[in-house]
Amino acid sequence: MQLDVISSVNEARSDDFINKTIIVIDVLRATSTIVTALEHGCSGIIPVETVCQARNLQREDNLLGGERFCKKIAGFHYGNSPFEYMSPEIQGKRIVMTTTNGTRAIQKSQKAMHVLAGCVLNAASCAQVAFALKRDIVIVCAGTQDVFSLEDGLCAGLIIEELQARHEGAMELNDTGIAMQGAYKYNEDRLEDAIMQCANGKRLCKLGFKEDVTFCLKVNHYTTVPLLREQTLVPYSVLK
Amino acid sequence: MQLDVISSVNEARSDDFINKTIIVIDVLRATSTIVTALEHGCSGIIPVETVCQARNLQREDNLLGGERFCKKIAGFHYGNSPFEYMSPEIQGKRIVMTTTNGTRAIQKSQKAMHVLAGCVLNAASCAQVAFALKRDIVIVCAGTQDVFSLEDGLCAGLIIEELQARHEGAMELNDTGIAMQGAYKYNEDRLEDAIMQCANGKRLCKLGFKEDVTFCLKVNHYTTVPLLREQTLVPYSVLK
Repeated sequence: MQLDVISSVNEARSDDFINKTIIVIDVLRATSTIVTALEHGCSGIIPVETVCQARNLQREDNLLGGERFCKKIAGFHYGNSPFEYMSPEIQGKRIVMTTTNGTRAIQKSQKAMHVLAGCVLNAASCAQVAFALKRDIVIVCAGTQDVFSLEDGLCAGLIIEELQARHEGAMELNDTGIAMQGAYKYNEDRLEDAIMQCANGKRLCKLGFKEDVTFCLKVNHYTTVPLLREQTLVPYSVLK
Repeated sequence: MQLDVISSVNEARSDDFINKTIIVIDVLRATSTIVTALEHGCSGIIPVETVCQARNLQREDNLLGGERFCKKIAGFHYGNSPFEYMSPEIQGKRIVMTTTNGTRAIQKSQKAMHVLAGCVLNAASCAQVAFALKRDIVIVCAGTQDVFSLEDGLCAGLIIEELQARHEGAMELNDTGIAMQGAYKYNEDRLEDAIMQCANGKRLCKLGFKEDVTFCLKVNHYTTVPLLREQTLVPYSVLK
């Protein structure tokens, strides 16, 4: 099984995704928020690139969520904090979501055979599903405005560890994958300290979202794995 | 002091280099070979992008070196193996050199205040010179055809360690820098094993250059630091 890691959306060439399973990672905060929403009963997340596309998809049973510059968009029901998506109001509802990096990475992955959303919260379950799908895997770190983000890289390393635990013999990793696995292993016991030093960690703390950062780093806190079907991310278990 | 790592030439924006010290890394093999040549008495390396440019610069006292597809170019005196540059014939000679990635990265760095060539062989000395130049530092991993190469990333991590040992308090690292420092620390005691698993390590071994790979991973084997002056890389000590 070949396992490649791509360090930012900018590097992703969608033709390289054909026939593969893609795991999109945007730890702070899009994929963490998506996993949290599905875990709390949201029936599906529709990822879109622009605010305009999100507003056009507003229906009676759809809610709008997302951010620009880390903040809630005017007129939207929710921002991009996982805590907002623990509410009973989202039970059975679909949420149209647009974020700066994460939803764009998901859009760019659509040529793949399967698209999953991964984060620290669901790393083990995400690895389990990706492994069961029996395709070569590409982990796409969403990054921030085309630049690599440490939290996505370390999460890629964590998912690699979880995949290798399920794989007989060594997997074929690309160079970025080997580097991220090493970076994760070195920081494994002090994940939060490392992330608080990186660009998004510092930015979110400054904006008052320190609790979000801490929450998004809870390893294997959830088991839900969002999988893209007909433009909508739904929990993998629903499809089995 | 701000210290950024750029993971491949493709990501480098030359305007970001203004007023800074750039350390170009191409461990396998351009910067390792350049350091070896200067250490063995070569008076200067002229890095050029194309074979044609190299041939145009051929003079009586210039030798031609470099590679395409890891192999020596027809009519050139030397290829890109450090062992070829230990010969007494290069004493006092200038060498015009073109390689696929390393020399291109050097060319792209020309807007910087200072451009150094770094590798595992000269990591400590390179850090010492970069630190003494008292500018913000950007480490440019040359990579391979615009894709990240593990050996350059681990070398960046090693040079970060050497820089931090000289710096009072923590340096400001970008996210790629934090990741590469972790990846290096995790692989520190088994550098050769890690590199033999990565794309260039495997490729060079297959082509019969395993000894080159082993040699290029000798930590702090040399003290020469190539610095770019008037389109030529010369030993830093010569300029002091």
